[in-house]
Amino acid sequence: MALTIDWRLYVLIDTGILGERQPLDVARAALRGGATVLQLRAKTWLVGEQVAVAQALLPLTQAQGVPLIINDHADIALAIGADGVHLGVDDLPVALARSIMPRGLIGYSPEGAADAARAVSEGADYLGVGPFATTATKLDAGTAIGATGIAEIVQAVPVPVIAVGGLGQHNAADAIAAGAAGIVVASAVTSAADPAATTRQLRSIVSEARTAKERA
Amino acid sequence: MALTIDWRLYVLIDTGILGERQPLDVARAALRGGATVLQLRAKTWLVGEQVAVAQALLPLTQAQGVPLIINDHADIALAIGADGVHLGVDDLPVALARSIMPRGLIGYSPEGAADAARAVSEGADYLGVGPFATTATKLDAGTAIGATGIAEIVQAVPVPVIAVGGLGQHNAADAIAAGAAGIVVASAVTSAADPAATTRQLRSIVSEARTAKERA
Repeated sequence: MALTIDWRLYVLIDTGILGERQPLDVARAALRGGATVLQLRAKTWLVGEQVAVAQALLPLTQAQGVPLIINDHADIALAIGADGVHLGVDDLPVALARSIMPRGLIGYSPEGAADAARAVSEGADYLGVGPFATTATKLDAGTAIGATGIAEIVQAVPVPVIAVGGLGQHNAADAIAAGAAGIVVASAVTSAADPAATTRQLRSIVSEARTAKERA
Repeated sequence: MALTIDWRLYVLIDTGILGERQPLDVARAALRGGATVLQLRAKTWLVGEQVAVAQALLPLTQAQGVPLIINDHADIALAIGADGVHLGVDDLPVALARSIMPRGLIGYSPEGAADAARAVSEGADYLGVGPFATTATKLDAGTAIGATGIAEIVQAVPVPVIAVGGLGQHNAADAIAAGAAGIVVASAVTSAADPAATTRQLRSIVSEARTAKERA
């Protein structure tokens, strides 16, 4: 399944940074703007609340042929029929997630190249690698790794690497030039004055950078 | 599967109230004392940490033929091969949990008789009903329902009802007399001076109360 996914513009709907905005409204705008993947991340929400919003999101993403990924909760992803789950080092180990989710997408946020290679060997379909630049979304995300850090992981693993953290119009092309298959954006889209327009611009930047990279 | 479970003494290993004690040590003592079901509840732990301790617990419970139930996380239960999951009103809905866990035990903590009946119709194998008495373990558990509250739910559903909350040597027999198939104990065992001995006493009290109830 992973081979057929368009990773260019992965929009993270993080309920912790939406302010007054509703996750479904932001998702609709992102889909309208051409988001190619959507993730729901609602760390502080009760599981029942996450289920309800994920169930409402799914028909929207399916209508656009866009994968819906659930942060952390493989059980929610399985139960609602989402396309996958995104895991971190403190979550369900990738190998175990793969054992209960033989067909779903499994994303992983590695801590370094060795951890990245291990996760892929255990069944991760893609990696979210960062932070590319400093970010206000995830204050515990660590030091920015930049283009060099992306390139290092791209060399280390055979799966798509999606750059994450502090990405926006100003540096999206740099992440793609470093070898990323796409970028994860959170606040750049969800806090934008016009989330749909910003999504559209970002997707265009990423597409052009990929074309340039392929020609190079 | 539910029909073959011995629900008499369901020991809840709640990491929030273990103090200096280790979950595995308490579990070993409870199993030595004759616990018939074990639940791991580690609300504040990272999922990865919960997985590690659950994986260590499983061979201990399996050696005694005792079901291991995981609180909240159906994905952990599925991934490690635990016997089931225990859910509350804010968790994964019972029907969805049943859809991803066709064979595992599903427990549910209902809010009233109508909610109890709904959960059973959606696939719950047993109900944890309480609080039987006031409890320090779960401060948000609400007003004690006592023997009357237990009897009401027992009448309303065809699955085993396990009384929970504020139970110990002094009132275990009352819960059984009201129709409970067993009792859930947390601090009564895990904070006891001798958890194994206390488990043994509680199991004996429950067994005698069941015999008396069957004769009556």
